[in-house]
Amino acid sequence: MKKLFIADIVDKIDQEVELYGWVNNIRDHKKIIFVDLRDRSGILQVVGDSSFKKLSPEDVIYVKGIVKKRPENMVNKNILTGEIEVQVKEWKIIAESEELPIDLSKDELNVTLPTLLDNRPLSLRHPKIRSIFTIQTTIIDEFRNSLKNLGFKEFQAPILVPAQAESGAEVFSVSYFDHKAYLAQSPQLYKQIMLGAFEKAFTVTHAFRAEPSVTTRHLTEYISLDAEMAFIESWQDLMDTVEIVIKNIVSAVFSNNKEEIKLFKTEKPIISDPIPRIKLSEALKIVGERLKQDLSDESDLSPAHEEEICKWASEEKKSDFIFITHYPTVKRPFYTHPDPENPDLTLSFDLLGLGIEWVTGGQRINDYKKLVENIKKWGNNPKDFDIYLQAFKYGMPPEGGFAMGTERITMKLLNLSNVREASLFPRDMERIDIKLS
Amino acid sequence: MKKLFIADIVDKIDQEVELYGWVNNIRDHKKIIFVDLRDRSGILQVVGDSSFKKLSPEDVIYVKGIVKKRPENMVNKNILTGEIEVQVKEWKIIAESEELPIDLSKDELNVTLPTLLDNRPLSLRHPKIRSIFTIQTTIIDEFRNSLKNLGFKEFQAPILVPAQAESGAEVFSVSYFDHKAYLAQSPQLYKQIMLGAFEKAFTVTHAFRAEPSVTTRHLTEYISLDAEMAFIESWQDLMDTVEIVIKNIVSAVFSNNKEEIKLFKTEKPIISDPIPRIKLSEALKIVGERLKQDLSDESDLSPAHEEEICKWASEEKKSDFIFITHYPTVKRPFYTHPDPENPDLTLSFDLLGLGIEWVTGGQRINDYKKLVENIKKWGNNPKDFDIYLQAFKYGMPPEGGFAMGTERITMKLLNLSNVREASLFPRDMERIDIKLS
Repeated sequence: MKKLFIADIVDKIDQEVELYGWVNNIRDHKKIIFVDLRDRSGILQVVGDSSFKKLSPEDVIYVKGIVKKRPENMVNKNILTGEIEVQVKEWKIIAESEELPIDLSKDELNVTLPTLLDNRPLSLRHPKIRSIFTIQTTIIDEFRNSLKNLGFKEFQAPILVPAQAESGAEVFSVSYFDHKAYLAQSPQLYKQIMLGAFEKAFTVTHAFRAEPSVTTRHLTEYISLDAEMAFIESWQDLMDTVEIVIKNIVSAVFSNNKEEIKLFKTEKPIISDPIPRIKLSEALKIVGERLKQDLSDESDLSPAHEEEICKWASEEKKSDFIFITHYPTVKRPFYTHPDPENPDLTLSFDLLGLGIEWVTGGQRINDYKKLVENIKKWGNNPKDFDIYLQAFKYGMPPEGGFAMGTERITMKLLNLSNVREASLFPRDMERIDIKLS
Repeated sequence: MKKLFIADIVDKIDQEVELYGWVNNIRDHKKIIFVDLRDRSGILQVVGDSSFKKLSPEDVIYVKGIVKKRPENMVNKNILTGEIEVQVKEWKIIAESEELPIDLSKDELNVTLPTLLDNRPLSLRHPKIRSIFTIQTTIIDEFRNSLKNLGFKEFQAPILVPAQAESGAEVFSVSYFDHKAYLAQSPQLYKQIMLGAFEKAFTVTHAFRAEPSVTTRHLTEYISLDAEMAFIESWQDLMDTVEIVIKNIVSAVFSNNKEEIKLFKTEKPIISDPIPRIKLSEALKIVGERLKQDLSDESDLSPAHEEEICKWASEEKKSDFIFITHYPTVKRPFYTHPDPENPDLTLSFDLLGLGIEWVTGGQRINDYKKLVENIKKWGNNPKDFDIYLQAFKYGMPPEGGFAMGTERITMKLLNLSNVREASLFPRDMERIDIKLS
């Protein structure tokens, strides 16, 4: 079994090593041939003789050789292995590659998004593309770690669901024996149910939206990071928790994935302490003044307004993040807790960061009778919410929670232009792995 | 926000504490009323006056009081808080419960499985039922930790898939705009694709089987723990890895969840080092001899045979686990690597434990041309596997992997009689939360 990664040999000067990896690039200097060997940890210059001529890009090879310091004029300070090379003593091909449809050997993979996705198994091998998903793993890990440290417990939310909690239109239906089932739009109702057992619960799950348009920031399947907590004293507790989680995620990416993040040349976003919290009505006023528009009748922020209020927060509050609070009742789901001071508004919030929504959350109605009333008011039948309502019928403390989309966070931290780049196998109305014809 | 859990106050004798939780039970002794207060960490005896009369089971309450040692004759050695009680100074109701359909106050929740599931949000609150899922979280965490320590990286496999890798019959179809999509039966093809980027990859994901029968060990949606590794020297590497993971999972459950596991009165299974590895043909011979049956024409172990070979392993090898290897080619998926010594057999294995399959795995074909050939031989069209095949067309080292079902492992470790008890929200052909009518 492979024991050594390329990144492990940087200090092994003059030692013999055995390596396995892919041929990233071949540079033929007649008597000497340089091969860039790639594995998941890095790229290494390997120096061989003319026998290397038979190699092709993406061949998998085994190499035995001696680690040497490179001559001064050959040092490449930009990469981890830039001061070493391996002089080959023995080598063999482990698996051969056919001719490549795309060139993986350059620092940037200069292909269109459809080409990148049509060749997903290959494009994933490119160090910069691979790094997107190394970083995504860090984001998810840190979401987990942060919440565990705060006493939350993880659970697995179901994907197949009966009635729908949110909008009816954007739901995928499944043929379920002689019945219909649906794909969960969010784990919302289940994370609330979990509070009776776990008090503080979180899940990393798949969520589905039958989004009938192709935009740069929507996927039909995405990874939702969801948390819910009972026994809150105030809904401010929820935003306090979001702050901790987001700070930890951003810090983890920029400290654990230094090599990867370098490839994207993005700056670590500034998170003020605390993150400013302003009401939607104030935000609309500020944006209206800045854009010289009358937004006094608006009940939400458009994408352009979200960008503008983020600019304001950055300029005036020295923060790349801002909480917008008190969204109108009509704009939020039935379970959102009304503001006791103004029942047209809710105890809800969005966290915007770098111009876009990162997190959405709020306090929930924990009173059984009010929930039943609201389900009816929203045009649904309480019978369809039987299991959910049980959680509240038999004693549920004040509670709330929040959710965020993994791919969006990845996209913003790496400044990618399309959320599809931040999804391993993106699904939209036109594609599931391959274009739908 | 709630700061203290019941389990945290055991050492706080004579100190004042503030607690939040659910009323598990009320014992009315006229002037003195005892309330068993429950939170996720335990159950606590709370001593109050006649004002407690207004309480009902599952009311959520706040209690302020002094922690006291119980009189000797009131000590209960079986529970963590059995030597203390809290003398109430102040209390209030946070949320009221309606009358309960099931009694949660006994050590055992004596209801039928349908009743337990019809009342899922309530039954989950019962300490023994909750413990099943605390333990399940440990199983999943330890799967992750073990593989991370071995250099594996986590990824998220998609749920919506186009073509189907395994059998055609038991697949759920999804209306996907003007097309059909399917629910993944396993993350198999995607974990293999990930090797090109991560070399060693794992995922915790949902898998779906349109199982048209109701058995005690099948669910239509389950949590699959899947791992895959490249650059193996031999397929024995895979079983070595499985051994490490299974040992860690079993140890973690029995050391991290001592209080929970006590409720199930199960013994820690014996895992010999190494776990015996025998060929299917040998296993059939042994089982045939023991049961006095002629199994020489069999190509698989029936559930009864699995139980019998486990008994043999326990008696003869002092191991509650046994690897069965070399399943016939016709019994395994198209990607299974044939045994070079006998192409009718494969380099595949099942790990059986305590009478049932825990893990299935094997080496995969990493040669592109042979894979294409096999896809055709299995009656499929290579075009439907275009994305998958790319991973092999462009250089893939020898590799293999394994998978296990979380609910089954949970069921066996806790000696539950039905896998539904080990699923938070079990789905089968008759139920999605509520009975399908």
